[in-house]
Amino acid sequence: MELPKSIAVQDITSFDPPKRKLMGPGPSDIHPRISAALSRHCIGHLDPEFVKVMDEIKLMTQYVYQTTNQLTMVVSAPGSAGMEACFVNLVEPGDKAIVCINGVFGGRMKENVERCGGTAIVVEDEWGKPVDPNKVEEALKAHPDAQVLAFVHAETSTGVRSDAEVLCQLAKQYGCLSIVDTVTSLAGIPVLVDDWGMDAVYSGSQKCLSCTPGLSPVTFSKRAVKKIKNRATKVQSWFLDMNLVMNYWGTAGTKRAYHHTAPVNALYAMHEALLMVQEEGLDDRWERHHKHHLALKEGLEELGFRYLVDEEYRLPQLNAVFLPEGLDEANIRKQLLEDHMLEVGGGLGAFAGKIWRIGLMGYSAREENVEYCLGALREVI
Amino acid sequence: MELPKSIAVQDITSFDPPKRKLMGPGPSDIHPRISAALSRHCIGHLDPEFVKVMDEIKLMTQYVYQTTNQLTMVVSAPGSAGMEACFVNLVEPGDKAIVCINGVFGGRMKENVERCGGTAIVVEDEWGKPVDPNKVEEALKAHPDAQVLAFVHAETSTGVRSDAEVLCQLAKQYGCLSIVDTVTSLAGIPVLVDDWGMDAVYSGSQKCLSCTPGLSPVTFSKRAVKKIKNRATKVQSWFLDMNLVMNYWGTAGTKRAYHHTAPVNALYAMHEALLMVQEEGLDDRWERHHKHHLALKEGLEELGFRYLVDEEYRLPQLNAVFLPEGLDEANIRKQLLEDHMLEVGGGLGAFAGKIWRIGLMGYSAREENVEYCLGALREVI
Repeated sequence: MELPKSIAVQDITSFDPPKRKLMGPGPSDIHPRISAALSRHCIGHLDPEFVKVMDEIKLMTQYVYQTTNQLTMVVSAPGSAGMEACFVNLVEPGDKAIVCINGVFGGRMKENVERCGGTAIVVEDEWGKPVDPNKVEEALKAHPDAQVLAFVHAETSTGVRSDAEVLCQLAKQYGCLSIVDTVTSLAGIPVLVDDWGMDAVYSGSQKCLSCTPGLSPVTFSKRAVKKIKNRATKVQSWFLDMNLVMNYWGTAGTKRAYHHTAPVNALYAMHEALLMVQEEGLDDRWERHHKHHLALKEGLEELGFRYLVDEEYRLPQLNAVFLPEGLDEANIRKQLLEDHMLEVGGGLGAFAGKIWRIGLMGYSAREENVEYCLGALREVI
Repeated sequence: MELPKSIAVQDITSFDPPKRKLMGPGPSDIHPRISAALSRHCIGHLDPEFVKVMDEIKLMTQYVYQTTNQLTMVVSAPGSAGMEACFVNLVEPGDKAIVCINGVFGGRMKENVERCGGTAIVVEDEWGKPVDPNKVEEALKAHPDAQVLAFVHAETSTGVRSDAEVLCQLAKQYGCLSIVDTVTSLAGIPVLVDDWGMDAVYSGSQKCLSCTPGLSPVTFSKRAVKKIKNRATKVQSWFLDMNLVMNYWGTAGTKRAYHHTAPVNALYAMHEALLMVQEEGLDDRWERHHKHHLALKEGLEELGFRYLVDEEYRLPQLNAVFLPEGLDEANIRKQLLEDHMLEVGGGLGAFAGKIWRIGLMGYSAREENVEYCLGALREVI
C-alpha cells in the first residue's frame, strides 16, 4: 500500500522536556513519588486490582473533600470537564441558575448554564474581590425559582477566596443546590464539603494535589444525587452522565458496569497524590501552604510587588501581584522561563500584562521553591 | 481544625500493579519507551516547548490518520469523549442522523445523537456481521433530509470490520457527513481518512497505538469544519466545542488561546507512541498485526476455538472467538488472569459468557504474546 509521502513526518524525535520549576497557576511540580506511580505497569480498567485502586481513590477523595458523599469519584478529564459534569447533571433545560462572576471561571460557569439550556442570572463582583454574599442573597430573593447557585471558591484568574461556607448556606436557605469550583483551593486551603453543606464540587488534579494534569475529582451531596436521579430529561453528555458513571465507579452500590476506559496510569498517579495528602494530613498541608506563602510574600513585597487581593481573601497558593513600576512583564517572564527554568503565570483578561500569578501549590509549596523564585527575581529585575 | 475522624483513611499504601500481559480489547501493553515518556518532567500547558510538542502530535496524528485535515488533534479525554466530540459538534437539535448498529458502540452513537437533540434512524445488522451498505443506501434514500451517517469501522464488541470506504462514499453521495469510530482500527488496519473521504473520525489511545488510556485522537474534514463554523446553535459541550479547542491546538491558524489544561504527561506518551508508528511505518505496522493474528488464529483453532466473524471482515487486532464446548469461560479467564498474569476480554451484551475477545493491539501484537497466550491456554483448558 502506497502512503501519501507528503504527510509523512520527518525530523521528530523523542521529547526531553526542560526541567522547569512550576510556580504558575498550575500545573504544579509533581513529586517524584507521583511521577513514579504514573509510569507503573498498565493493567485493565476492569481488572479486580484496578477496581481496588478506584475504591481507594474514592475513599481518599472523600477525605480530601472532607465528605461522606457516596457519589465521590474522579472524572476522566481535566477540571473544565469536572465543571461541565456538575452543570450538565444538575441544570436541565429551562432551569434558572444564579452564577457569581468575579473572574474568568465564573464566566465559564455562565457558558455552561446556557449550553445546558438554562438561564443564568449573573451576580458580578469586581475581579480581585470575593463574591459578595449580600448581592447573592438579593439575587436569591429576586429569583425564588432559581434551582442552582454557582460560584468559584478560589478564582485562579485573580487569587481571591470567596466565603464558600456562607454562600453554600445561603443556597440551602433559599432552596438552591450549590455548584462550587474548588480547582485551586482543594488541598491548599480548607474545603469542608459536609460541614459547609456543599452540593456539587469539582477540582483539578494539577494544582494543590500536585498530580499529573487531566483529572477532576468531584463529589455530589445526597440532595444533588436526588436531583440527578429524578431529572425530567437525560443528561446531555453521555460521557459525563453521573447516572452511568456512578455504576462504573461503584458509587451506586451496584455491580460495576463498563462505561468508558479510565485513564489507568493517571489514576495511579492520583492514588499516590491522594495518599501523600493522607500521610501529611490536611491540617498540616494547609499550614504548609500558608507558611511558604508568608515567606514568598515578604520577599515579593521587599522587591516592590504588591498584592491584588486584600489580605483576608488572599489565597496562599496563588499569589496575584502587581509588578514594580516600569518593568516589562512579558520580557521578564520570558527570561525567568528561559534563563532560570522558572514558570510563573501572567494575568488573564483585564489583568493581562498587569499582574503575575505566582503559584505555591502542592509540591511547589516548599522552601526551596520560595528561595529559588525570589533569587531569580532579584537577578532579573 | 478538627477533622472528622470517621473518614480518615488508614491502611492504604502505594499501588504496585501486577505485571499483566494485556491481550483484551484494550488497553494494550505499553512499550517501555512510551511508559518512560509518560513520567517525564511536567511543564506548563502553555509553555512554548509544550506547544511544539502539540504541533508535532498534530503532524503525526495527521500521518496516522493519513490526512491533511487542519483540524486534527487529540481530545483530552478517552475515546468515549472523542465520540461525543464528533456528535456534539456535528449534530444540532432537530438534525437527523443515520446510525448503523452492529454492536455495543453503534448503540452508544445512537445515544449521542439523541442527547444532542437529534433523531437517530437506525440501520441494524446482526452482531458479528459488518454494516450492510445496501441497507445503508436504502436508509439514505428513505431519509434525504439526514445530515449525518455514523458507523463503527471496527466494532470492539465483536471484532468485525465494516467497509469504511464504501460507507463514507455513500454518505458523500447522499449529502451526509460521515462520523466514524476507529477506536480499535487506527494503526492496526488501514484508516485512510482522505482517500476514503471520511468527515469526522475519532479513536482511542489505548488500542493499536499502545499509549496510556485516556486520550482520543480526532480529525475533521473541511466539510465538517464548515458545518461546525456555521452552526445555528452553540455546541452543547463547552469542553468539547471544536470552535474553542481548535484555538488552543493552533489548528485554526490563529494565536493560541488557553482553553483547558491539557493532560501534559499523557500527551508526552502520545507523542512517543505516534513517533513509534512513524518509525515503524504504517504499512509495516498493519502487516505486523496481520502476521501475528495468523499465528494466533492457527493456535486457537487447534485448541478448538472458532471465530465469530467471517474471515473477510475479521479484525486481526481483535480476535472474537467461541470457546471449545463445555468450558467454564469465566473461571478459565480468571485462572489466566491470576495464575498466568494474562488478560483476555469476555463478551459484551448478547455475547457475554459466550465469546472471548483476544487482543493483539500495538505493542501487544508480537510473537512473545502469541506464544505466551497459546501456552497459557494449553495449560488451563
